[in-house]
Amino acid sequence: MATIDLDLTRTGQVMQLIRDRIERRLLTPGARLPSVRAMAESTGFSKSTVVEAYDRLAADGAIRARPGSGFYVAAPLSPLSLDRIGTPGEREVDPLWMLRQSLNDRPEALRPGCGWLPDSWLAGAPIRKAMRAVARSDADGPLTRYASPLGAPPLRALLARRLEEQGVAAAPDQIVLTDSSTQALDLVSRFLLEPGDAVLVDDPCYFNFLALLRAHQAKVVGIRMTPGGPDMAAFAAALVEHRPRFYLTNSAIHNPTGATLSAATAHRLLKLADAHDLVIVEDDIFADFEHVPAPRLAAFDGLDRVIRIGSFSKSITAAIRCGHIAARPDWIEALADLRIATSMSGNPLSAEILHAVLTDGGYRRHIEGVRARLARARARTMARLRDVGIEPWIEPAAGLFIWGRLPAGIDATALARTALAEDIVLAPGNVFSPSGTWGDYCRFNVVMSDDDRVSAFLAKACG
Amino acid sequence: MATIDLDLTRTGQVMQLIRDRIERRLLTPGARLPSVRAMAESTGFSKSTVVEAYDRLAADGAIRARPGSGFYVAAPLSPLSLDRIGTPGEREVDPLWMLRQSLNDRPEALRPGCGWLPDSWLAGAPIRKAMRAVARSDADGPLTRYASPLGAPPLRALLARRLEEQGVAAAPDQIVLTDSSTQALDLVSRFLLEPGDAVLVDDPCYFNFLALLRAHQAKVVGIRMTPGGPDMAAFAAALVEHRPRFYLTNSAIHNPTGATLSAATAHRLLKLADAHDLVIVEDDIFADFEHVPAPRLAAFDGLDRVIRIGSFSKSITAAIRCGHIAARPDWIEALADLRIATSMSGNPLSAEILHAVLTDGGYRRHIEGVRARLARARARTMARLRDVGIEPWIEPAAGLFIWGRLPAGIDATALARTALAEDIVLAPGNVFSPSGTWGDYCRFNVVMSDDDRVSAFLAKACG
Repeated sequence: MATIDLDLTRTGQVMQLIRDRIERRLLTPGARLPSVRAMAESTGFSKSTVVEAYDRLAADGAIRARPGSGFYVAAPLSPLSLDRIGTPGEREVDPLWMLRQSLNDRPEALRPGCGWLPDSWLAGAPIRKAMRAVARSDADGPLTRYASPLGAPPLRALLARRLEEQGVAAAPDQIVLTDSSTQALDLVSRFLLEPGDAVLVDDPCYFNFLALLRAHQAKVVGIRMTPGGPDMAAFAAALVEHRPRFYLTNSAIHNPTGATLSAATAHRLLKLADAHDLVIVEDDIFADFEHVPAPRLAAFDGLDRVIRIGSFSKSITAAIRCGHIAARPDWIEALADLRIATSMSGNPLSAEILHAVLTDGGYRRHIEGVRARLARARARTMARLRDVGIEPWIEPAAGLFIWGRLPAGIDATALARTALAEDIVLAPGNVFSPSGTWGDYCRFNVVMSDDDRVSAFLAKACG
Repeated sequence: MATIDLDLTRTGQVMQLIRDRIERRLLTPGARLPSVRAMAESTGFSKSTVVEAYDRLAADGAIRARPGSGFYVAAPLSPLSLDRIGTPGEREVDPLWMLRQSLNDRPEALRPGCGWLPDSWLAGAPIRKAMRAVARSDADGPLTRYASPLGAPPLRALLARRLEEQGVAAAPDQIVLTDSSTQALDLVSRFLLEPGDAVLVDDPCYFNFLALLRAHQAKVVGIRMTPGGPDMAAFAAALVEHRPRFYLTNSAIHNPTGATLSAATAHRLLKLADAHDLVIVEDDIFADFEHVPAPRLAAFDGLDRVIRIGSFSKSITAAIRCGHIAARPDWIEALADLRIATSMSGNPLSAEILHAVLTDGGYRRHIEGVRARLARARARTMARLRDVGIEPWIEPAAGLFIWGRLPAGIDATALARTALAEDIVLAPGNVFSPSGTWGDYCRFNVVMSDDDRVSAFLAKACG
């Protein structure tokens, strides 16, 4: 008996050693464990002890055996509990898979699922002009100096004027510049969330919301979308059941569905928010694409409990990172402190170039041109999708996306894997869905999907 | 008795209401509470109940009374438990106070305490040239497209070659670009830390390390600096006592002291790290200023347990944000995922401009010129400080800083407050010190302190 106890202790010691290394990130998910022989040699335990320890860890799910190849760490990592095993092609189809596929620089790939416009649609020429203007300036400061705590005053003043046009009264000091709308949301999450806090999102919603909230260890609660906004009965019930810290949405042109919040839903939503002291985070990055301005929660609420996030990544350039947050003055101060602590300073040169682009007469022409071309591409892609039996959930009034239901029996994730083998990056519905109940939908980029090769693939796969 | 119980319940209800609003960030530190009358009206409780609730909350330290002005939220906020009450001038002298003072755009202020070079010392002309070159390119992609997941391949290849010159073998895929070394450290902290984890830092250390680690709710453990690196006996004891997740340092030109890690200490440090499975984060942002390369932990260790962080904010420009992390391939993958989830993409235009600056022949001349001018400024500031009775802790071989002991009886924080009233921003020792035991030191920027008005102030204050 003493021998068995001793063995158990030894096995336990090896197990603890491995767990400790996983815990301390010295072994990360997907990493190969030392071979049984190497582990036995380095620790002084017998090979049978090591085998026993590895087997128990595998039974616990902490590691995985791959026949003929050894043992690998399987334990999901907090804060990003994503399966990182294997090559990108073998990764799970999750939000980060989606992002990596979209961001990977393979010029030959087709990207009907991607979330932005082609290079040539964006503001290349206005940016060149702005860069030359900034390069001509005599002062070295704008080219060499850290940003001020809230970011460049001229750009903040301009953003305040633009917000006013949308009915949102915000003083320049109620705006802090960030490097992107994603960083803006990250700062807001750092400010408002503790691990385990609940956050309401739309179901479906922009998939990176899910990755980001997971990085904050938030409990994500999805509210089923309707064409006029989130389902209000479900929303009210979730407020009571989960006491969420905030609700995160795009109210103008919803990603991925293209839906627009109705005035009635906006009103009910804000009434519920008042009653439950709920903060609302409104990510408004598609604002430039609207033909007719839709209701904005930030406008109704007057930046009392609404935090408004924006950027120009979709309409001007994604290569110059510059987003912003508009919110209550005390929140902006706290967010600016957090921004300094975690990234020191914004990118003042980016702010300078963007300000030059926005104040140039060419900007409005650029946006109007994009809107008109988008409308035509949307009509064409709608027709292409219907031709292959893909039915739009709604006909969006504006924006980049069509949320399309695949023909019966076709699973979007499986379709995305097949497509990737042909170098076509699709956006399958469930990467947008916290409940995983949109598996028969894909998000289609109306410009990138307006392509004969994409249509041919879809006809073959859906036919 | 029933009446009293009921009163207690009512008071408790009002208290809970306020606590809840503080918890949910609807009332933030420094925010004024509703007046007693307004609170009584909106809740339906009597004014005496509200007064009682406010008084008890004040007794608990959750709020503060200001005579004649009402009640204000005092509760420190996690994750940044800083006192945000009042105007910046009234804030506590803490790391974020220091950063805000330094970053505020008041051209008339003198900044002997600041952590960077004057605008005119940085690479204004090379940046103008690089911007014109980038603006001339035909392709729209570099001006409009998101970065690839790890960041621009040409810049990563160049950084890999530079690391090799420092003896650090890193493949380009072992490098991920970030927006700054601060963001790099933030990503590493997100990857490695859970709230409550211990982190070793030098005492004193760069003050924003303290703000950043506080934002991660880490337990910061300071290790007393010696001129050759951290005190090794204290280091070894801290490893056993605190089981830290990582040790964060600048090994080449230490901020704020200017110390350089000795080879013997580097060797002992890495042996201890091996024995305790300790990760080391080496922030090497002053590398460009070295005359003679000092030992690098990343070079000795070969990026096994060392994570190396760098940027060009100090030597080229702080207005183009671009840092980087070099580390084990599996960690780089995880860090890139975290980067995408929390900020979507790097700034490819910044990477493009920086790459053009670094590959231009003028870069080496620029750096050599800065080094030579820095050496002269260092000698002059050393003399100026000694003239007013401020004694350098060591005579640094390179870099931007002198860590100076004030004459007996002078408190650095009090001196910094006096200086600020004269629009002079000093860097008092304790903002760099987790133990708060460097209150008789200040960090002096050798360029910004080489100024007659600064000398005059110091002579008057220290005389």
